[in-house]
Amino acid sequence: MPHNDSFIQSIQPKLIEWRRHFHKYPELGFMEYCTTYTIGQELEKLGFTLYVGKDALQSDSRYGVPDKETLQEKEMVASASVDDRFLANMKGGHTGLVAVWDTEKNGDHLAFRFDIDALPITEAEDEHHFPFKHSFVSKHSGVMHACGHDGHTTIGLGLAHFIAENSSDLNGKFTLLFQPAEEGGRGARAMTDKGWLKDVDFFYSGHIGIQDLPVGTVAATTKGFLASAKLDAYFNGQSSHAGMKPEEGRNALLAAATAATQLHSIPRHSEGISRVNAGKLIAGNGRNIISDRGFLEIETRGETKAINAYMQKEARRMIQAAADMHQVDVEIDFVGETEQMICDDSLASYISKVCESSEYIHEVIPVARVSGSEDASFMMNEVQSQGGQATYMLFGTRLPDNHHSPSFDFEEEVLTTALDMYIHIIKGGHLID
Amino acid sequence: MPHNDSFIQSIQPKLIEWRRHFHKYPELGFMEYCTTYTIGQELEKLGFTLYVGKDALQSDSRYGVPDKETLQEKEMVASASVDDRFLANMKGGHTGLVAVWDTEKNGDHLAFRFDIDALPITEAEDEHHFPFKHSFVSKHSGVMHACGHDGHTTIGLGLAHFIAENSSDLNGKFTLLFQPAEEGGRGARAMTDKGWLKDVDFFYSGHIGIQDLPVGTVAATTKGFLASAKLDAYFNGQSSHAGMKPEEGRNALLAAATAATQLHSIPRHSEGISRVNAGKLIAGNGRNIISDRGFLEIETRGETKAINAYMQKEARRMIQAAADMHQVDVEIDFVGETEQMICDDSLASYISKVCESSEYIHEVIPVARVSGSEDASFMMNEVQSQGGQATYMLFGTRLPDNHHSPSFDFEEEVLTTALDMYIHIIKGGHLID
Amino acid sequence: MPHNDSFIQSIQPKLIEWRRHFHKYPELGFMEYCTTYTIGQELEKLGFTLYVGKDALQSDSRYGVPDKETLQEKEMVASASVDDRFLANMKGGHTGLVAVWDTEKNGDHLAFRFDIDALPITEAEDEHHFPFKHSFVSKHSGVMHACGHDGHTTIGLGLAHFIAENSSDLNGKFTLLFQPAEEGGRGARAMTDKGWLKDVDFFYSGHIGIQDLPVGTVAATTKGFLASAKLDAYFNGQSSHAGMKPEEGRNALLAAATAATQLHSIPRHSEGISRVNAGKLIAGNGRNIISDRGFLEIETRGETKAINAYMQKEARRMIQAAADMHQVDVEIDFVGETEQMICDDSLASYISKVCESSEYIHEVIPVARVSGSEDASFMMNEVQSQGGQATYMLFGTRLPDNHHSPSFDFEEEVLTTALDMYIHIIKGGHLID
Amino acid sequence: MPHNDSFIQSIQPKLIEWRRHFHKYPELGFMEYCTTYTIGQELEKLGFTLYVGKDALQSDSRYGVPDKETLQEKEMVASASVDDRFLANMKGGHTGLVAVWDTEKNGDHLAFRFDIDALPITEAEDEHHFPFKHSFVSKHSGVMHACGHDGHTTIGLGLAHFIAENSSDLNGKFTLLFQPAEEGGRGARAMTDKGWLKDVDFFYSGHIGIQDLPVGTVAATTKGFLASAKLDAYFNGQSSHAGMKPEEGRNALLAAATAATQLHSIPRHSEGISRVNAGKLIAGNGRNIISDRGFLEIETRGETKAINAYMQKEARRMIQAAADMHQVDVEIDFVGETEQMICDDSLASYISKVCESSEYIHEVIPVARVSGSEDASFMMNEVQSQGGQATYMLFGTRLPDNHHSPSFDFEEEVLTTALDMYIHIIKGGHLID
Repeated sequence: MPHNDSFIQSIQPKLIEWRRHFHKYPELGFMEYCTTYTIGQELEKLGFTLYVGKDALQSDSRYGVPDKETLQEKEMVASASVDDRFLANMKGGHTGLVAVWDTEKNGDHLAFRFDIDALPITEAEDEHHFPFKHSFVSKHSGVMHACGHDGHTTIGLGLAHFIAENSSDLNGKFTLLFQPAEEGGRGARAMTDKGWLKDVDFFYSGHIGIQDLPVGTVAATTKGFLASAKLDAYFNGQSSHAGMKPEEGRNALLAAATAATQLHSIPRHSEGISRVNAGKLIAGNGRNIISDRGFLEIETRGETKAINAYMQKEARRMIQAAADMHQVDVEIDFVGETEQMICDDSLASYISKVCESSEYIHEVIPVARVSGSEDASFMMNEVQSQGGQATYMLFGTRLPDNHHSPSFDFEEEVLTTALDMYIHIIKGGHLID
Repeated sequence: MPHNDSFIQSIQPKLIEWRRHFHKYPELGFMEYCTTYTIGQELEKLGFTLYVGKDALQSDSRYGVPDKETLQEKEMVASASVDDRFLANMKGGHTGLVAVWDTEKNGDHLAFRFDIDALPITEAEDEHHFPFKHSFVSKHSGVMHACGHDGHTTIGLGLAHFIAENSSDLNGKFTLLFQPAEEGGRGARAMTDKGWLKDVDFFYSGHIGIQDLPVGTVAATTKGFLASAKLDAYFNGQSSHAGMKPEEGRNALLAAATAATQLHSIPRHSEGISRVNAGKLIAGNGRNIISDRGFLEIETRGETKAINAYMQKEARRMIQAAADMHQVDVEIDFVGETEQMICDDSLASYISKVCESSEYIHEVIPVARVSGSEDASFMMNEVQSQGGQATYMLFGTRLPDNHHSPSFDFEEEVLTTALDMYIHIIKGGHLID
Repeated sequence: MPHNDSFIQSIQPKLIEWRRHFHKYPELGFMEYCTTYTIGQELEKLGFTLYVGKDALQSDSRYGVPDKETLQEKEMVASASVDDRFLANMKGGHTGLVAVWDTEKNGDHLAFRFDIDALPITEAEDEHHFPFKHSFVSKHSGVMHACGHDGHTTIGLGLAHFIAENSSDLNGKFTLLFQPAEEGGRGARAMTDKGWLKDVDFFYSGHIGIQDLPVGTVAATTKGFLASAKLDAYFNGQSSHAGMKPEEGRNALLAAATAATQLHSIPRHSEGISRVNAGKLIAGNGRNIISDRGFLEIETRGETKAINAYMQKEARRMIQAAADMHQVDVEIDFVGETEQMICDDSLASYISKVCESSEYIHEVIPVARVSGSEDASFMMNEVQSQGGQATYMLFGTRLPDNHHSPSFDFEEEVLTTALDMYIHIIKGGHLID
Repeated sequence: MPHNDSFIQSIQPKLIEWRRHFHKYPELGFMEYCTTYTIGQELEKLGFTLYVGKDALQSDSRYGVPDKETLQEKEMVASASVDDRFLANMKGGHTGLVAVWDTEKNGDHLAFRFDIDALPITEAEDEHHFPFKHSFVSKHSGVMHACGHDGHTTIGLGLAHFIAENSSDLNGKFTLLFQPAEEGGRGARAMTDKGWLKDVDFFYSGHIGIQDLPVGTVAATTKGFLASAKLDAYFNGQSSHAGMKPEEGRNALLAAATAATQLHSIPRHSEGISRVNAGKLIAGNGRNIISDRGFLEIETRGETKAINAYMQKEARRMIQAAADMHQVDVEIDFVGETEQMICDDSLASYISKVCESSEYIHEVIPVARVSGSEDASFMMNEVQSQGGQATYMLFGTRLPDNHHSPSFDFEEEVLTTALDMYIHIIKGGHLID
């Protein structure tokens, strides 16, 4: 196998180009029509076998699919630039794809997962913000790659190039999962349920940033990702003229606002970390009308499945009570979830070992403590339940602002580090230890 | 003067037609481009002198003008059907018009005001809803004439026909004010400040419904309209990942929700009626992000200007404290107001007297108690401050549902009653008493 | 009949003395043991027929009787100074008395009601506070005559003297009701249900202060007293160590606090005045324990019985929802009420007429607008339902501070005015008009 | 040195007797007059040098001392049974004592700390509750040893007996700190600041229960005790009649209730455990009075000093904002605190070793995870800052109900285990390792 540094050097300009392209055209979960198409075109050229949209996902295992109207509008816009061959398979919010490369030589089955969706955040537009300064700020108002998935997708494309170009030197089988709708824990279960992880020996995924580490430092495993549940609450009351007939209104805005404020009084749990957030509230029609509609997006998290279950149960009771308090009806939809995940210790040492020879990786931290949620958990748990091993890694980079902030950005050098890490993992052949 | 019953009979089909047209194409305040154009075309044909948009309004006396982008989008759509001659004058949210008819004979100057805007409500679409059943339900999703202004506009057109057709039998001068943006108390001050009421001797306006009276019953004057203030609160915090860095967020959603729930604890006032409503709340980006933005639409009301001032002062303090509580900034905009209004008793007896001969009016209630808010108050106070007299009337009709409800509707016979009432007022010559 | 001015002059020093005595020894509702005894001794001397405690009250019609332990403790203390003959009849919270004087001559049956209880307020102790400066500030810590009932009781004693001393000049029958527990609307129903008002022709009661009127100005009737309901809510949760096992607690303090804050969001009623107040909240054991107990005292009011019923119903639902929200149980006790009351217009003119000759009364306002609640309403409604007439009057005095404030006080001259008003009412013989 | 099992056997009946006595007569922090006296008498007999009350405490380092009136009342009651010699030294809330035994032989200085105060909880009175069934339920209504300090005190007395009886076989110096007011983190700092820990080589304290361990299992060290801050908030508003003049009130009850509910929305901290509790709320005078006073007891905790500082800072801002919201004043008193504490690992192995020979200890867990707060932290940090070593241990016992619950109790066999553990620690001579 040729020294991969020359591969890295040759692909670096493409990494930057891909990343900036994806950053410029961010798409929300289950609406990554153009993103999926861009990935698909690239992988098709390389010779991967592709499973797009409906072929990649178990349709009814998706959580929180946008409503029909929103999807159709997006599909109409996408149809201008996305080939019908792809679009037909993606209709109705079936985005993402799975790309398979079989060397047809005996060997392990490795799976790599890259999440491709963006967030409903309006990107900062000021000179201190690198993407703005360098003219690749989001073109889609209100949507932004504020979590680094543009980078993840890019790394996946880089890795696909490596596999295709070095196939003759490789053994076994490679499955690349370009997963939609990671935000909200909505997409991973649908790929998992489609069966892609069934005979996987080693599973790898990872995230840019998260911890404040310099470029060149990576973590081989992580602990602390929280189980989570995503709830949407729809409050239905009765509108009325607020000046003339206040007593005839049943105030859905107050019900939603009360739920939002009260949720935080769910007692903390003595056995571990818990979280609750009401991240979005939309209610009401106008100032002089008692509001008949309220909508609330909620997320609970727990260090264990049990703690998250406790948080979800308490949250549901509080939301119901808030509705009762203002005599409105409420419907609570379950729209996403993530599980706990436990990385295999053996991979910590394997990765440390194989990365020793990397020119780009200066330090491998065996395990990093984190506290978000990840639906890669579904895939990892599936792999491990079948006897495989799995890990979720971190790729260090300094961040000018937090994940999910309008000024989020990362150092583009991390793309190289991360890609090199994946390459060393493949080249290691899982023979060490 | 010919017996007006034949006039009424001949115009009745047009009243129904106009009303249903306006109902079908409702437009929000300061965006009544098509509505204004429809009115203007009709009045131009009749020979009225028109003052459209910028010529009718004091531009900087308008409250709560929609943002530029929204206006431009609406103007672009309107440009397909509205003559440029009109549209040019309406650009930038200058809707409504004033129509003047001068008999050039000595006599009183009478002003009549009709409000023309609709509400941000999604109209009911079921068979029990008359406009749906009869196919004139709103074509503009999310916008609805749920307060009867479609009827008011129609009555105004009817009255214009009467004046034009009977001009030779009339004395004095007639000013018809087709006012935009009554909802939210946003438009009347701009017409008032333009000077239209300066030398008016008698001012008349009125409302369909409000009280549960049968068609044929009207009220000559009203008491109880509340002074009101409209406030918009913009909360600015700091977004952060709700799972990973909750302590770095400053939660604007919680600030807005806290303000909304707490506002109701402003103590009631012993000296009269007070109201407060948070009618709209929009906050947050997504469930796993601590929200950095929150927006709240609020209205306070008071039986007197002093009580409303008290309510507004308390509301402002509470909103600020809610922001402080969650360490976010808040900006409070004053976007609309109405004043108290006191109808002239003398007009109660005048109207009772002149309506005795009406075939359509069975009973005139001298004074009806109400409790909403009306920005006709600005016009009435202006007329009265110059020595004129003014009243605000009610036109009885049964309502299947409350004002500002998705199923609001009225009996179309009220259009005839109301028009006949205005006609008798004109014909009475203000000579009685 | 002798000129009553000499009577007034001779009794004035006693009025001051009585008032200051009652002020110094205030007693809460259903615990007016000493107050009742003092009144009883005085009336016994005058020759009235007395009905004390159990003989004056329908025992099971009392609302909000203090708990056994509290009563026993008070009775023990009272036993040191109250004659057993009285105390035996008062045991178990049966305070107050009814005094009857029958002239045995044909004539009307007049009833006069005086309320005798104090409030759970700690009286101000500073030089600007007249009772403190003049050394008759409350000796009972935490209890205070902050509503003028010390004055009412005094006026009743003065009136009894007048009746006894002028009996030979009077006709008919006089019933004086010294009612316990007016605060909280707890005592009047029990006297009413005992039957004292059954054959009463004219009923009179009244209040010192309320409106800002000078001494010498009185109101013959009042309108605006609100119907009210008094609720006690007991929340029962589960205590737990707040640091070690927060998730095992069910927080009754939060339930009570949530109820208290949310109650204010009951929509105002378009048909009239409404009120709600959470006046007392006691919850919790200590800072590091999740509270298992919460107690809330609530009062709702309405301009009509229907509005108050609406307020009470909404309040109950909100309290229940607040309990559900924090997974605690709640029991809601109904502990007091008042009704609406409508004074007879005829008495407005009668009183105006008969008071013309009074030296102390300078102006009689026919009707004064008020907005508190009064359980004299039970008595008035009973009298009127039997064909009698009733009124509730006001006796003007300037107040240094509001009713129910620690610095509440009144001008002692009002005692004279009020007594003289009652005397003129009796002397008028109800013959005018 | 004689085999200590015979000592244990002979003292066991006394342990039970002492424990039940202390349990029956519980006293709140800084009011342990009788408890201190009972301890003092016992230790005096044994020959310890005693430092009582003012001699044991740095007076102005105490937190949250009860008010003068409460103390005087308690001192008056205590004076009936407590010798003046002791009482004089304890006046003004100076309870607790330090007992010193110097063998006058070279050796280590060992300090042992026992906390002696009870909690404001009303003890359960039912047959399932062991103390009730066996007639040693609390005689002091509303006060209860619900945290096992009756046991701690008992163990201290047992240890004192051991030291006195075996003095000839021991070396060095022994200081026994019987500390008042552990609950609320109020007493330890005052003993620490008095200088008792200055030259201590080894510090030992511990707790009954906490973790669900059987009798015979103990933990040599603990981790996870939280830094904490105790705040009292006094809200001052303006009272007013809730029906007549609601707008003149400034509602302190609502301010306190708002603070209590909002405190929970302080964001959790990503770097570790945090807690907040509003454990007590007292507000208001009566249902028809807008409340002018509100009182709130709050506790914040954090896994580190920094997290607790964050919680305290946020809590203070929220309390202030709640006051501002309802236009009331607030004063926040700092009334207690605990620090983090880190047990010395070396003591884990020492204790495991020396306890091997114990007949009563079956298992020593090197480190147990806990999550409360302990003001022994002040003493431990002081000892460690001077180069000494310190630990906080757990003594296993099954609990029928949680700490701080009305049915809290422990298995009395734990007294023997704990005492035997202390004895082995002394006998080990700190020579191992």
